[in-house]
Amino acid sequence: MVLCLLLPRALSANENEHGPQQHPRACKRKHSGPEGARNRSFSVFSCCENRSPREHQRRKRERCPWRRAFRSICFPHPSERDEDYARALQIKHRVYHTTCHSRAIPISSVLSRECVTLKTMRENESSNARSSQPLSVAPYRGVRDFYPEDMGVFRAVEARVRSWIERWGFEEYGASLLEPAELYEAKAAENEEIAREQTYTFTDRGGRRVTLRPEMTPTLARLAAARAKSLRFPLRWYSFPNVFRYERPQEGRLREHWQWNCDILGEPGVSADIEIITLASSILTDAFGAPRESFEVRVSHRGILTALEGEYLSEPPPNPTRLWAWIDRKEKMDAAQFTRGLRDLLPFDDAKVMETFLEAGSLDETLSLFPRLASVSAVELLQEAQEGLTLLGVPWRFDASLVRGFNYYTGIVFEVFAVSGLRRSIFGGGRYDGLTALFGAPPIPAVGFGLGDVTLTAFLKALGLLPQSALSLDVLVVPLGVRQLALAQKHALSARKAGARAVALLAPASPKEGVGEALRAGARWVVFVGDHEEAQRIVTLKHLPTRTQREAPEEGWEHLLAGEPA
Amino acid sequence: MVLCLLLPRALSANENEHGPQQHPRACKRKHSGPEGARNRSFSVFSCCENRSPREHQRRKRERCPWRRAFRSICFPHPSERDEDYARALQIKHRVYHTTCHSRAIPISSVLSRECVTLKTMRENESSNARSSQPLSVAPYRGVRDFYPEDMGVFRAVEARVRSWIERWGFEEYGASLLEPAELYEAKAAENEEIAREQTYTFTDRGGRRVTLRPEMTPTLARLAAARAKSLRFPLRWYSFPNVFRYERPQEGRLREHWQWNCDILGEPGVSADIEIITLASSILTDAFGAPRESFEVRVSHRGILTALEGEYLSEPPPNPTRLWAWIDRKEKMDAAQFTRGLRDLLPFDDAKVMETFLEAGSLDETLSLFPRLASVSAVELLQEAQEGLTLLGVPWRFDASLVRGFNYYTGIVFEVFAVSGLRRSIFGGGRYDGLTALFGAPPIPAVGFGLGDVTLTAFLKALGLLPQSALSLDVLVVPLGVRQLALAQKHALSARKAGARAVALLAPASPKEGVGEALRAGARWVVFVGDHEEAQRIVTLKHLPTRTQREAPEEGWEHLLAGEPA
Repeated sequence: MVLCLLLPRALSANENEHGPQQHPRACKRKHSGPEGARNRSFSVFSCCENRSPREHQRRKRERCPWRRAFRSICFPHPSERDEDYARALQIKHRVYHTTCHSRAIPISSVLSRECVTLKTMRENESSNARSSQPLSVAPYRGVRDFYPEDMGVFRAVEARVRSWIERWGFEEYGASLLEPAELYEAKAAENEEIAREQTYTFTDRGGRRVTLRPEMTPTLARLAAARAKSLRFPLRWYSFPNVFRYERPQEGRLREHWQWNCDILGEPGVSADIEIITLASSILTDAFGAPRESFEVRVSHRGILTALEGEYLSEPPPNPTRLWAWIDRKEKMDAAQFTRGLRDLLPFDDAKVMETFLEAGSLDETLSLFPRLASVSAVELLQEAQEGLTLLGVPWRFDASLVRGFNYYTGIVFEVFAVSGLRRSIFGGGRYDGLTALFGAPPIPAVGFGLGDVTLTAFLKALGLLPQSALSLDVLVVPLGVRQLALAQKHALSARKAGARAVALLAPASPKEGVGEALRAGARWVVFVGDHEEAQRIVTLKHLPTRTQREAPEEGWEHLLAGEPA
Repeated sequence: MVLCLLLPRALSANENEHGPQQHPRACKRKHSGPEGARNRSFSVFSCCENRSPREHQRRKRERCPWRRAFRSICFPHPSERDEDYARALQIKHRVYHTTCHSRAIPISSVLSRECVTLKTMRENESSNARSSQPLSVAPYRGVRDFYPEDMGVFRAVEARVRSWIERWGFEEYGASLLEPAELYEAKAAENEEIAREQTYTFTDRGGRRVTLRPEMTPTLARLAAARAKSLRFPLRWYSFPNVFRYERPQEGRLREHWQWNCDILGEPGVSADIEIITLASSILTDAFGAPRESFEVRVSHRGILTALEGEYLSEPPPNPTRLWAWIDRKEKMDAAQFTRGLRDLLPFDDAKVMETFLEAGSLDETLSLFPRLASVSAVELLQEAQEGLTLLGVPWRFDASLVRGFNYYTGIVFEVFAVSGLRRSIFGGGRYDGLTALFGAPPIPAVGFGLGDVTLTAFLKALGLLPQSALSLDVLVVPLGVRQLALAQKHALSARKAGARAVALLAPASPKEGVGEALRAGARWVVFVGDHEEAQRIVTLKHLPTRTQREAPEEGWEHLLAGEPA
């Protein structure tokens, strides 16, 4: 869009309201259009939007394309902005609204009225300048802004996951991100690190303690517990909430991210575990086409670690919660540091046993080292899960060190690791059968996972599989004159009603400019309406791929869009 | 899904771990399946999920359908729950995982191992019971839970609006709901009531003051200002954020709601105002089919009120901000209260002038009462807008009392009122040209609106126009035996890959039960896999609408779904 600056000589930006000076930065180009002629007190300066000073100079030498675009406002190149210029633009706005319309009115009669406002505006500005610096344009730390190109990718990924999950018969639920703080402080839901150090918790104006949800599972348990009587189990439920954690922002760890939550509620059998793990894996392979070799699903069962503690350690661990939290962090530190920590938490011999256990590469290896674990129910369950996952083509591996951070897990747990490229955990989940009991409801068996958008996007990007959004225009309607602005809108509306994605230019343009704009926007059709078209009650319709052009009646032309010329 | 309770006699719920008593509430039904026979220490009690005690009795008399469904867990009717029962279920869970699999193992060897855990579990429970009451299942005050049926409506409305807005060439942007508190406290962005009394503002763990956005416009201005150099104006941007206000929750006013924000940035001409108002109106008429008579768009321009103040009042209002805020609340109080407030804010005669002005029913009436306003630019603009809106079929009306709550508006403002049924403001918007200057960027002209989901839904519901979501299953895969659970999952996966919405039952069922389940879920196809099918490498495929049934090869049966039998 080409824009132009319109400054009344009497209000140029040097603050001398009645002096003859012109703004030093505006490109001087006297305008001799009808309005200019009628309003003798005006000079017109044209300049171009958002261009570098060099381009700006180049454009000045070209033929002025703004003669018709008189109705618009200039944006000087921002590197040139200064207080005066900004105010000049604001002044111009008001003058613009006063004068720049088809009915010309004597400027002098308006200016007297505007001057009061201009003075007030200037006073406001200076008091603002005293009271505050310009605000920062940066977002809050650790969160993201989504410009349309970012949002396009976000939505394209979302649409793929959503449509794939819905093919599995999962239904969407949702809730507010504001939850009572007690929900995360309750014993069984507690992940100590998260509840104590990482939540956004505050007191509202009514004295209620509120937390921005750090995860969706307690909310899901709350919803299920509230309607435990009337819901028909098993439920397959999914959600795509944003969740919040106060962490030091770093690569792949933000303070807010969105997270796919898929859960099966009400089925205690391992068939539900198998379905959830297969869904997790198939989001990568089937919804996005990730190769099976690009990741592995590491699976374990918390009961195996419990059984090891009972069968092979000399005494029960003094602090099992801290021990498990330490094991959970194993991948995040080097071996020496991990061993030191383990020896703080366990007697020396027990720490050695535990190390051996955690380093086993497969379930068979674990069982050959610790044969008494073979009859443990957790192992039986894992073996059954393995059979199912193998049949379903999930790339599966046993990982004894996998415990997952949340204390509420009660059964099989899993994590999806990227093995090519990223080499990091992408997401995980597991079984948590007791959580609804927190609300005094029957303990509903549950298994699920949470898949974050940041890590998913990073994984897909590393594999070159990130989908792109491709929304482009179908039709651009070009008003050739000021008189056709509303008519152009009307034609765009007709096109939309016929199902097309259509835009009407907000300022008049020449056919050439219109075609240029349409090509930039990816539109296939351009519709011109000028005086000729308006008088004849027609439109001129141009098909860009074939460069064919025809006239069509004002009513019903939009039906020609369906049948494109060959 | 029929579920069944499996309790080891040695662990019945009366806390005597080795006593012979059975849980008094479980329906006694000895199970004589293969596992029961192998594990002599077990009794099996079957009972039904979520049924009333009466139904429960009826089911007991019927043939036990759970013989095969041995792998599942019972939920007693919640009216019967008590502490013991809940614990019994938790105990049963663990025992379930120990025993209830195709390979039977001697229960005694397992129980010794489990007993430690059971004791710990009981201790944890009692310490929990001491430390805390069950948590409430209620959401935080003034926000909504979305169960799948609510979410379905929410998404159906969202999809209609989104697809219609995108036909107008608007692109989506987004941002975090966490914003620096300064953004809302800055002078020009300030709506005093909202910033002082209604924001959720708190200090994060790093000492930053954070606000949950009460509206999207300051965020939009921040995004546009940050890239004022590189963005290509005019922009047509939309977003669908949730926004937060600490208010007393009441009908149609919640503490969190979602809001469609549509804005055109970079075009100062009235053509942008016309496009935005037409879009607002056409969301109702074209995206949802609301009759043109069901609402009206009330339009005004702030400059008219300013001009009235300059031309007809005896002196400038001492406190224009408070005056405008008072006028903004006019519809929310009775006439006497409004007049009293006006007389506090203006001299007596001026208050009378203002009252007369605010009560004018049309622009013509206003101009006949206050002829000196006729040459004011705002009136010219409104007249031009009126011409455009009439051509575009928008039900338009001038309303002198319309100022809108936010101080940042600078030009035409509008509000959409429901006139049939609800008789209330649905949403509104206007022009705000200076907002980006807050960030030290050039003042980018902007016009837009915010449409809340709660009021939109109420409006549509009153007209009977609320869209419904209709996601139903295509295929239900029924495993006839425990051995086919994973195979059923595999067939469901094949169906999904062929584009169908498919679910496999998580527990085995008879053909009759499977068909019942499929009919409830709205599936058109049922696929059975039992021992016969597995051995022959086929599936049995039933088309429910025609009640026809056929066998098909295990590989490739899913391609039969496309061609339904006539």
